[in-house]
Amino acid sequence: MSHSAKLSVPLVAPEALNDRSARVADALTACPSLYRVASHESHGGARVVNCGIDVPGGLSAGLALARMCMGDLADVSIVPASIPSVDRPMVFVRTDFPVLACLSAQYAGWALSSGKYFAMGSGPMRSAAGKEELIKSLGYTETPARVTGVLETRKLPPAEIIEKVSGDCGLSPDRLVLAVAPTASLAGGVQVVARSVETALHKLVELGFDLSRLVAAQGWAPLPPIAKNDMAAIGRTNDAVLYGATVVLQVTGDDESIAEAASRVPSCASRDFGDPFAVTFERYGYDFYKVDPGLFAPARIIFENVVTGRSHGFGSLCPEILRASFAIEDF
Amino acid sequence: MSHSAKLSVPLVAPEALNDRSARVADALTACPSLYRVASHESHGGARVVNCGIDVPGGLSAGLALARMCMGDLADVSIVPASIPSVDRPMVFVRTDFPVLACLSAQYAGWALSSGKYFAMGSGPMRSAAGKEELIKSLGYTETPARVTGVLETRKLPPAEIIEKVSGDCGLSPDRLVLAVAPTASLAGGVQVVARSVETALHKLVELGFDLSRLVAAQGWAPLPPIAKNDMAAIGRTNDAVLYGATVVLQVTGDDESIAEAASRVPSCASRDFGDPFAVTFERYGYDFYKVDPGLFAPARIIFENVVTGRSHGFGSLCPEILRASFAIEDF
Amino acid sequence: MSHSAKLSVPLVAPEALNDRSARVADALTACPSLYRVASHESHGGARVVNCGIDVPGGLSAGLALARMCMGDLADVSIVPASIPSVDRPMVFVRTDFPVLACLSAQYAGWALSSGKYFAMGSGPMRSAAGKEELIKSLGYTETPARVTGVLETRKLPPAEIIEKVSGDCGLSPDRLVLAVAPTASLAGGVQVVARSVETALHKLVELGFDLSRLVAAQGWAPLPPIAKNDMAAIGRTNDAVLYGATVVLQVTGDDESIAEAASRVPSCASRDFGDPFAVTFERYGYDFYKVDPGLFAPARIIFENVVTGRSHGFGSLCPEILRASFAIEDF
Repeated sequence: MSHSAKLSVPLVAPEALNDRSARVADALTACPSLYRVASHESHGGARVVNCGIDVPGGLSAGLALARMCMGDLADVSIVPASIPSVDRPMVFVRTDFPVLACLSAQYAGWALSSGKYFAMGSGPMRSAAGKEELIKSLGYTETPARVTGVLETRKLPPAEIIEKVSGDCGLSPDRLVLAVAPTASLAGGVQVVARSVETALHKLVELGFDLSRLVAAQGWAPLPPIAKNDMAAIGRTNDAVLYGATVVLQVTGDDESIAEAASRVPSCASRDFGDPFAVTFERYGYDFYKVDPGLFAPARIIFENVVTGRSHGFGSLCPEILRASFAIEDF
Repeated sequence: MSHSAKLSVPLVAPEALNDRSARVADALTACPSLYRVASHESHGGARVVNCGIDVPGGLSAGLALARMCMGDLADVSIVPASIPSVDRPMVFVRTDFPVLACLSAQYAGWALSSGKYFAMGSGPMRSAAGKEELIKSLGYTETPARVTGVLETRKLPPAEIIEKVSGDCGLSPDRLVLAVAPTASLAGGVQVVARSVETALHKLVELGFDLSRLVAAQGWAPLPPIAKNDMAAIGRTNDAVLYGATVVLQVTGDDESIAEAASRVPSCASRDFGDPFAVTFERYGYDFYKVDPGLFAPARIIFENVVTGRSHGFGSLCPEILRASFAIEDF
Repeated sequence: MSHSAKLSVPLVAPEALNDRSARVADALTACPSLYRVASHESHGGARVVNCGIDVPGGLSAGLALARMCMGDLADVSIVPASIPSVDRPMVFVRTDFPVLACLSAQYAGWALSSGKYFAMGSGPMRSAAGKEELIKSLGYTETPARVTGVLETRKLPPAEIIEKVSGDCGLSPDRLVLAVAPTASLAGGVQVVARSVETALHKLVELGFDLSRLVAAQGWAPLPPIAKNDMAAIGRTNDAVLYGATVVLQVTGDDESIAEAASRVPSCASRDFGDPFAVTFERYGYDFYKVDPGLFAPARIIFENVVTGRSHGFGSLCPEILRASFAIEDF
């Protein structure tokens, strides 16, 4: 039997993810004009970093947001295009902590609403609150000095949201850091497209794959053009992953279970694969819960079994759908 | 109407571009042997960092030079080849401050001559002097603690040039930092090819495009082989941009004005498009002023309207011309 | 005659390579959980950083290992795939100190054995010991404050190895830093595939090429899937370079000697070119000394003569052999 057949990766963080992310936020607060963001003290002393609501933001702010989403346990960069006929910059993510970075922190599992206010919440605050089923099932929670979250929304969080988050995390509001960007913004776009690995991992959760087998992950996807509004941006950023992302996962264990799970991971395994997401979404009357959850996955995935040395690749990129979605009129 | 239709980006620098660039120069001066450069005190206490005259320099020095050119308001990196059949490293630039980085600082708009001495001057010193028409039209000048410029030349600057620059900037020579590299050098090559975005922006200036509409920019172009002399290097580095650069610009405003301006931006819109630059230059008797100014532009440009969500792509890469220009004899 | 015809690059290090590499090791020791490594004090106070034996390690640890191998005189990064049909992350290396980084430090020229223990030794410790013929021929040795080496092995170094290395380097064991990773590990894979430039330079040594002509170098190669054991990993990591690496070298001097040497550099110049390395290795009964030494070279090499401006490209990538070697089963 191979040397590493029994390797199981425990969820041990080098330090609280929330505190790591808070330090990334501190860099933006220290020089907001360098990131084209606005940082202000909000209700109860909470720190709110606005990365794209009535401020330009930018790709540097987007990279910082992505790192905040992932507990600063991933390397995120913007690189030139590499998909033929889709000449867009790409967002590249790699992490040696795939489960902590992408599931304990990055997954947008905390829907925050109050009256008319709504935001998708992600980031390590989820592991400080410890209320989601996913967080409970991972068995990792933390008690950090500061709590950090990222909100995908077009409105600054009101007092009730700040109370809700800090309360659920057991800290006073002045220990809370929230970074905010709309989907249809430069920073927001980077933040969402940095989720290539996360979508693969969340699909594995749904398939019941043993997450302690995940050793490392890399992913890359094209950065779509900013859309005219957030609804359109949701379409494009989803398409960037569904039809443009390649994800490589290093895993332990046997090949049979990989083969069984892996063919079901990429977006092409979904019944809703094939149309730009905006088309699918409209078909379902803009009701997220009617869309096949299995659609949210990278276009292509490669499982690399570090025990047996075998690799399994599934799915392929769809440049034509990307071009349609991104609506690049070419001359 | 869309949320951001009225977004206009003011020219606000996080701090004086000259001081930011001076700190990049300080890193080279602190450890010149690590960058293979020579740093010395020159006339009147001016600091001169020699990045390629009788010293090897290198790509790291070139990246530092590029950042100095842009007031350190851009991320510049060397990445592997991505143009099929042109297997050269590429220079990738992205900035959330396109106008400040590329026009207030990087554009080589200050021709410095004294007797037989000649150098093309770029960098933020131009915005401290405030004498060029372009700088005046931008409406951004600054009064930094130190003045920083980059000279494309094969000779170290004589006393008269140091006096001229510091005098025009209203500081004494000991407050001046000049970094110097020939076109035909490792560092000089990186510095020039990092101008993909700058050429697009300067073309927009000539087309009268409202620069306050520019939000962010990314560009990439192949790094040509060092040429046998500076004249030949001018040919190759121009070709790298004219036939090898892709630039993506995020802009605000209406689509009609973009469509009108954008088709005129890429190099293929010029009457002089189609030959390696060295051939064109020779045809005009090596007289820069006879070359169509509209030639100096990236091969391909994509305008991304962040208000309407529409993108407009113009022009395409010309690998065959690049291969001819770069004179790679393949076996 | 051209300006730089006489340029000869002396072997001058900005500081002792060993001390530079030791500082990289210090970063891992300061936060081993962030790199998923284990750092412990071993025999005589020697510092041993375990990057992949019974610890997960990761790509970040691999990048640190690669920098330690090269005296921290190179920039090493992981980037997305760029070889069509080989969708693997790539390892990109660039250095302005090719001979010091790759030959004085990175070349795995020190075989360390004691009883059943065996490790391939690389890193700047070789230039502190000064015993190899290659090191003697380069004429560069150093007397650092600490000695740093990298061991490719699956076992932690025993006391005798620590005594041997520190003794040969003339320092006590508590001045020794050894980083260790097996070939079949995440970090070990990065470390080996970061040798694209090194293999080209070592081939030039064998061809008697004047190394003082080497100015700078860049190289990139795909990161293979972790193999099931170290023997299989040796096959894949070799193939990544032999069939997947592109190397660009900036050199001085005349074109004739380049043309003569260069055609013999790439792997295709070897009689053993054409099969996955594992097949070749098996054919020779797993006896390294029977394999043509000329096989260990990048698939494609481009010599860029910075004096004459001519470039010479030889060899080409072999995606089909890479796919066979990496054993990616695609669906």
